Amino acid sequence: MLLGSIEAGGTKFVCAVGNEDYRVKNSVKFPTTTPEETLGKAIEYFKKFKIEALSIASFGPIDVQYTSKTYGFITNTPKPGWKNVDFVGLLKKELDVPIFFTTDVNGSAFGEYTVAQLFNEKIKSLVYLTIGTGVGGGAIIDGEILGTKGHPEMGHVYLKRHPADSGFEGICPFHKDCLEGLAAGPSIKARTGIAGEKVAQDDKVWDILSYYIAQAAIQQTLILRPDNIIFGGGVISERLLKKVRRDFEKLNNGYIDIDDLENYIRMPRVKNNGSATLGNFALAFNELHK
Amino acid sequence: MLLGSIEAGGTKFVCAVGNEDYRVKNSVKFPTTTPEETLGKAIEYFKKFKIEALSIASFGPIDVQYTSKTYGFITNTPKPGWKNVDFVGLLKKELDVPIFFTTDVNGSAFGEYTVAQLFNEKIKSLVYLTIGTGVGGGAIIDGEILGTKGHPEMGHVYLKRHPADSGFEGICPFHKDCLEGLAAGPSIKARTGIAGEKVAQDDKVWDILSYYIAQAAIQQTLILRPDNIIFGGGVISERLLKKVRRDFEKLNNGYIDIDDLENYIRMPRVKNNGSATLGNFALAFNELHK
Ligand SMILES: Nc1ncnc2c1ncn2[C@@H]1O[C@H](COP(=O)(O)OP(=O)(O)O)[C@@H](O)[C@H]1O
Ligand SMILES: Nc1ncnc2c1ncn2[C@@H]1O[C@H](COP(=O)(O)OP(=O)(O)O)[C@@H](O)[C@H]1O
Ligand SMILES: [Zn+2]
Ligand SMILES: [Zn+2]
Repeated sequence: MLLGSIEAGGTKFVCAVGNEDYRVKNSVKFPTTTPEETLGKAIEYFKKFKIEALSIASFGPIDVQYTSKTYGFITNTPKPGWKNVDFVGLLKKELDVPIFFTTDVNGSAFGEYTVAQLFNEKIKSLVYLTIGTGVGGGAIIDGEILGTKGHPEMGHVYLKRHPADSGFEGICPFHKDCLEGLAAGPSIKARTGIAGEKVAQDDKVWDILSYYIAQAAIQQTLILRPDNIIFGGGVISERLLKKVRRDFEKLNNGYIDIDDLENYIRMPRVKNNGSATLGNFALAFNELHK
Repeated sequence: MLLGSIEAGGTKFVCAVGNEDYRVKNSVKFPTTTPEETLGKAIEYFKKFKIEALSIASFGPIDVQYTSKTYGFITNTPKPGWKNVDFVGLLKKELDVPIFFTTDVNGSAFGEYTVAQLFNEKIKSLVYLTIGTGVGGGAIIDGEILGTKGHPEMGHVYLKRHPADSGFEGICPFHKDCLEGLAAGPSIKARTGIAGEKVAQDDKVWDILSYYIAQAAIQQTLILRPDNIIFGGGVISERLLKKVRRDFEKLNNGYIDIDDLENYIRMPRVKNNGSATLGNFALAFNELHK
């Protein structure tokens, strides 16, 4: 059996086919240009394989409410040409298979959840947060993707300011100093003039970032009580997560008992950014069998 | 059929029996003294009725994990005498009926959820936040109580400070300036020297509180995407919620589309603090039929 995966990002698309072991059999990558060209390439790719179901993990915002008239659409994205594009509808016309549609971070969250089940880890709920060009998050609660009215937008929560960061206004176009405005990659450049990948390891900006990322982990802990909080995205490194765990402990101050913090706040188990593709295979499989 | 409800608060217990219409047939109130005396009174009360199931909505922290050795216990509460009390076990010994055990706020959340279903409202998910002596919260997601590893502790999230409140340290014994430390009833007295019920309506403390309560609503919106956020507790009034809605709109800044804010951020539908009792009846009924 072959299952299809589209990881639809704002800059590139990754299409893949895999089997029911969720192993990648073939994959292709191309830049995100116009919807016609990009979705055309995806359709052309999947027509070469006999896939039985497809799952799409897409950039957003997207409409995931089944009952909505614009279900399956990318909605009011600032990305030129992509506003109100009927992503699922266009694919459905050309590929006659069940299609599951979710956010990029939900795809990654579900991939990590699936791997945890395959490894027999006692994980029923988890959160996946990505800190990259933006900040996004998805959660799996008792095996189900969280978000019935719409998908979460966990990147835009407000936070307590770091004392050494009070002069920085924040760069979220909606909220200025929300999590994304304070801790996504571009905020590093806005503060230091240098892109995150080139900033010295001992720069104080890392302590500022970890303070905010730790607060996001605290919020998720207090609201969702997940088994794991997983961090991905270009800004995240094991070095930064060490600081995040340190700040989490300080901010939590013993209030919620976390038995293994190293494992609680961690990087993805699936390597090479493969969480979303694996998640898509599992979600496509589920879509076929429901 | 008779169903039992215990609303176990830190200062008082409310025991009630009701029928499968979730109407109160009889109820009694007594102060929370020692566990022996208080639970003894509850047992004595329910022995007078032929209840078929019981639900307890308790102050916490409590252990709600079925697989845990201390399931059904009140755990490390600061309340003298109540630490590590086997609440469910002690009742089970004397009352031979199925018992459901959850937090006070989960009970209230489930009561409001149940009423919404009875009124045919299109509500699948909601959050109940209480702002009283402390701040607590519970959520119902697709009809299920949220929190598998443990119950939420939504009152202790960190927030962006109100510019006119930067001189106030916050009074949470764990975190100082978390939501509870900044917005619970005692914070009003700590700032003004006057208890909340006596502070003038035009005092600026109400704008400070509403700013924090609105941020809590923003967080819940971004993380859980519920259909409604319901506020209870002594500090909450329709007057304060007006300010909360105003601040919510400013802080959201059009990011998440809320069609009817008046209905989205609101007081409980069940009057006279009856949400938890009604929720208990529904939870007891479910416990009997699962
Ligand atoms: N090693 C690094 N340390 C810190 N920031 C980094 C690092 N590498 C990339 N970044 C930043 O991460 C952001 C890109 O994130 P990424 O997750 O790769 O892409 P996207 O979010 O667009 O999918 C950029 O702002 C970049 O400067
Ligand atoms: N009208 C009011 N306005 C503001 N605060 C109030 C009002 N009435 C009571 N409070 C405050 O609410 C808190 C008590 O909350 P309540 O929900 O009644 O009790 P508890 O949380 O202990 O169950 C106290 O701090 C009290 O000062
Ligand atoms: Zn924002
Ligand atoms: Zn606190």
